[in-house]
Amino acid sequence: MAAPGRLPKSIATVCLSGALPDKLEAASAAGFEAVEIFENDLLTFDGTAADVRRMCEDLDLAVSIFQPFRDFEAMPEPQRTRNVDRAERKFDTMQALGTDLVLVCSNVQAAALDDPSRAAADLREMAERAARRGLRVCYEALAWGRHVNRWRQAWDIVRRADHPALGLCLDSFHTLSVGDDLAGIGVVVPPEKVFFLQLADAPRLAMDPLSWSRHHRLFPGQGELDVARFLRDLLGTGWAGMLSLEIFNDEFRAAPSRRIARDGLRSLIWLEDQVRRAPLPDLPRLSGIEFVEFAVDPAARNELGRFLGGLGFAKAGLHRSKDVELWRSGAANLVLNAEPDSAAAERFEQLGPTVCAMALRVDDPERVVARAEALQYPVWRERIGEGERRIPAVRQPDGTLVYLVEDPSQGAQPIWEDDFSLSPIADGPAAPLGVDHAAQAVAPGMMDSFVLFYRAVFGLQPEALWELPDPYGLVRSRAFVAPNGSVRLPLNVSESTRTGTGRFVSALAGAGVHHIAFAVPDAGAAADAAAARGAPMLDIPENYYEDLAARLGLGDAELHALQQRHLLYDQDAAGGVFRHAYTRQFRDRIFLEIAERSGGYTGFGAVNAPVRMAAQRRNARQGIGSVPSD
Amino acid sequence: MAAPGRLPKSIATVCLSGALPDKLEAASAAGFEAVEIFENDLLTFDGTAADVRRMCEDLDLAVSIFQPFRDFEAMPEPQRTRNVDRAERKFDTMQALGTDLVLVCSNVQAAALDDPSRAAADLREMAERAARRGLRVCYEALAWGRHVNRWRQAWDIVRRADHPALGLCLDSFHTLSVGDDLAGIGVVVPPEKVFFLQLADAPRLAMDPLSWSRHHRLFPGQGELDVARFLRDLLGTGWAGMLSLEIFNDEFRAAPSRRIARDGLRSLIWLEDQVRRAPLPDLPRLSGIEFVEFAVDPAARNELGRFLGGLGFAKAGLHRSKDVELWRSGAANLVLNAEPDSAAAERFEQLGPTVCAMALRVDDPERVVARAEALQYPVWRERIGEGERRIPAVRQPDGTLVYLVEDPSQGAQPIWEDDFSLSPIADGPAAPLGVDHAAQAVAPGMMDSFVLFYRAVFGLQPEALWELPDPYGLVRSRAFVAPNGSVRLPLNVSESTRTGTGRFVSALAGAGVHHIAFAVPDAGAAADAAAARGAPMLDIPENYYEDLAARLGLGDAELHALQQRHLLYDQDAAGGVFRHAYTRQFRDRIFLEIAERSGGYTGFGAVNAPVRMAAQRRNARQGIGSVPSD
Repeated sequence: MAAPGRLPKSIATVCLSGALPDKLEAASAAGFEAVEIFENDLLTFDGTAADVRRMCEDLDLAVSIFQPFRDFEAMPEPQRTRNVDRAERKFDTMQALGTDLVLVCSNVQAAALDDPSRAAADLREMAERAARRGLRVCYEALAWGRHVNRWRQAWDIVRRADHPALGLCLDSFHTLSVGDDLAGIGVVVPPEKVFFLQLADAPRLAMDPLSWSRHHRLFPGQGELDVARFLRDLLGTGWAGMLSLEIFNDEFRAAPSRRIARDGLRSLIWLEDQVRRAPLPDLPRLSGIEFVEFAVDPAARNELGRFLGGLGFAKAGLHRSKDVELWRSGAANLVLNAEPDSAAAERFEQLGPTVCAMALRVDDPERVVARAEALQYPVWRERIGEGERRIPAVRQPDGTLVYLVEDPSQGAQPIWEDDFSLSPIADGPAAPLGVDHAAQAVAPGMMDSFVLFYRAVFGLQPEALWELPDPYGLVRSRAFVAPNGSVRLPLNVSESTRTGTGRFVSALAGAGVHHIAFAVPDAGAAADAAAARGAPMLDIPENYYEDLAARLGLGDAELHALQQRHLLYDQDAAGGVFRHAYTRQFRDRIFLEIAERSGGYTGFGAVNAPVRMAAQRRNARQGIGSVPSD
Repeated sequence: MAAPGRLPKSIATVCLSGALPDKLEAASAAGFEAVEIFENDLLTFDGTAADVRRMCEDLDLAVSIFQPFRDFEAMPEPQRTRNVDRAERKFDTMQALGTDLVLVCSNVQAAALDDPSRAAADLREMAERAARRGLRVCYEALAWGRHVNRWRQAWDIVRRADHPALGLCLDSFHTLSVGDDLAGIGVVVPPEKVFFLQLADAPRLAMDPLSWSRHHRLFPGQGELDVARFLRDLLGTGWAGMLSLEIFNDEFRAAPSRRIARDGLRSLIWLEDQVRRAPLPDLPRLSGIEFVEFAVDPAARNELGRFLGGLGFAKAGLHRSKDVELWRSGAANLVLNAEPDSAAAERFEQLGPTVCAMALRVDDPERVVARAEALQYPVWRERIGEGERRIPAVRQPDGTLVYLVEDPSQGAQPIWEDDFSLSPIADGPAAPLGVDHAAQAVAPGMMDSFVLFYRAVFGLQPEALWELPDPYGLVRSRAFVAPNGSVRLPLNVSESTRTGTGRFVSALAGAGVHHIAFAVPDAGAAADAAAARGAPMLDIPENYYEDLAARLGLGDAELHALQQRHLLYDQDAAGGVFRHAYTRQFRDRIFLEIAERSGGYTGFGAVNAPVRMAAQRRNARQGIGSVPSD
């Protein structure tokens, strides 16, 4: 945390689950310098404010602020006098807590007066009383404040009150959620009058700001607000204070506090990079998914091999020192890892044959490692045999590995040459050009951790959110895509445990790749080849093609060509076309896709997902096996 | 369904989970006469439209409509011509399905022209083509339609088109969600031009209508829209068509289709009562909770008895023919059922000591039974011994029983006299006046079924929704209360499985009473008496009282009196006051409360719930037992 340019970091206790001691320990373990004590966490704590102070001291945490103090300013009597008494009592608490700062958020009471000079007089009195004890007050415009809901209004009141112990609290959510920003703040607000800064991101939701704020806030980088620009505008004034997170999120409240606290710190490290305050090693230039790795044992490997063989994959190499096989078709690589006593073996033991890792092609693996380490993501380096390549990896939030390999097309020696005995295979027609996308199913409470990981470490960008109706509930799907389009990773989540995604996630108790799509140059030819090999392709109902004809006016010949090959079809507004077909499920753990993009199509055929999901469920019910018999 | 005045009933397949055959079977089993075939359910179905027709015929279901047909009217060329072709293809599908009606919803495309006469001309052409095949078209204003989003606009277009095969489709959600209603519809729309009616309720949410509609619709009676007035206005025109449900709800999509279909039919039966089209037996006049029943075995009974003894309960009677005890304090009755081979014994076997039933005092139990049966809720009558009273009961959606007993204060013979050997007990000071409220924890996917049950059978009214922060996630709580205030049943739900509510619901795999509050005349005296008996009361942190002093300006003496007794305090805007205290948990299955209301207080002290939940979790962690030792 002592890197040059870094700002001190704080987190509000309300972001984290558990009792107050759990929250403090999680904040300290993640590496925060300070915590905001959210009043409710103190009220429910079975100890004194002085106890909290001691716990924080033991954990090397400062108390950055005590908050919130509500509905104070511009009240008629007798509430006005009572509010001043209330402030004095809370000052006692602050002194016991060992913090000198309290946050007053703008009044939401119907009885509050629309009178900025009255508000200023009240806040001046509070600041004067605070100053007598060496304390300070900061005033924040809530987005749903009765009369004060923009920072300029709050500043106007602070300016009028004109007291050295009174300053402004800025909050990115309250500012950005109402369509406001900090542009020009340096012209009106002296930086030393910004006493406190709260940072929160959020998805863009068309709902009332109060519900939006109370349930859907996210850490910076997990949502869609331009928190970086907000912070840049403030830093541009010369301000250099503490960055503090205040997130109200239903899932964070229920998630393990240590994971959430760590994500919080990472989000601020990422944000400091975004504003070039404390730059991280540059983002990698990505150039594709080099391989996907399965955990198997020898029996499962045989079975999976037959399944993969249907799409033209064949054994192309054997690891020099481990029981690991390379299977290949065209330029797509799959690794089948049956090495005993490995992480893969452990995963196989628990989950059966599943994807246990994937590898991304990057321009400089070690720079990614350095970036991930700076973001405090765990890095892993495998044990290797004599003369073998050590492939570094970073751990996803679920613990599975993302390997980092240099792009062989940029002159790097392919990893396969060092570590594998390769045997040439003959590719069939329309063999894959590579992995088009690899989709992961993620437990609901893990999604935001995945989003931060892929955005912060790899710079993947979120695409549109799709809501896909599985027969037993909705699946929400959002792809994270490299700016150059070379890597596409859809993340799928379902609240329902009865959907395909929900059942997969329940079985894994976490997350995992459940769908790999291979880019092919000609989906028709690839489907014909798959059919000739007896691949277990998913049947598509006739009704789908009738609707396609009605919707898109495809000619009879084209329609027939699609239907005969079980191919699905999508087109975008710009004339891009997607032709794709799915295999059946392999043991409820993975399904494959062949996908042909043309005309600049960038989607994933989401419109066809309901047909695919209904067919998968039908197969599952009928117990239709995915593996052709020997 | 053949009762006089009843209208035929239909449900859209999109309301229900599963594949199309599951949906049709569930709709038929519930007793619907017809289904709306939602196009997506047909597209994903692996059979022809003619197959669907045959399935429906076998199930005695008509196909009321095929829907939706989107983005048809007022498109520029070439889409206009293509849309007409698309319509012809869908007419083929309709004929194969065996329905004569298609729903056209107003165009949402950016390219759609804002030209009502063009829209009218397009719809006229579609109607003319439909008419040639004996088919009909109805046009609906979507709340988020590009140019047409009110029923009056849709009617204006239908009127201009002036074709006998073109009519209007009305939808309560699309009308009520935008603040519109059907007032005056009879003046402008001839009833025979309303070809179709879709009914949906929803909670009042401040969010965009599209998301609101796609995820949060509910059956009539489960939400907050005035669907009854909407229907009344339409029936007032002389219209008498089919009532059809179209609900998009994430939880319904994931829930068992038979339960949801049954709730759907019940909601329409309830609605026909609300509009006095087919009245049900009158709502009961409620006058309290007569008893709460626990499933125990003899050992658990001893343990529970000691726990109850702390609040002054003592054994007051023994059932004449069963191993069932009555425990009583003041006017509050608890039944401890250890009868072998009973439903209670089965529940005890599965769940340990838990609440297995409760009894409501009503003016006429048999009328409630008749009402519940008309609403298709299962009714249960226990086996009885010679001379004993048969107490009828209705089953809650989780299968537990709600007994119905006549109010003894209205002259009825108390049930206890017939069935129990009673022994007098001496009440302590401030003994309960009765059960103030009994709170149930409900699994998220079950909540709407409970809401419908209590509203439809008992006429309980929903109160404000509270969001209560448990240390491990949010708990949402809403009380359902009799209009005369005599019965109060809070229902609690938590998405998080780590909250107290979530853990309880997971343990029960459903729902159950986890909290019983007893109304006492003097909470201070009741707390003192409990302390004297060694009751395991919940400790309340000192910080709570400090905040109370700051917030409410209570005097030192009053504050001290509260704190000494572990009493919590709330007051409402009108001066009503609530003083209450909680016991610790009994085996993670139940906790009790003593509650004193004064000054017309009608709430539940929700503001104090976080303090209670944090203290409960602290006790659970520390393994603090709830039962005083012998």
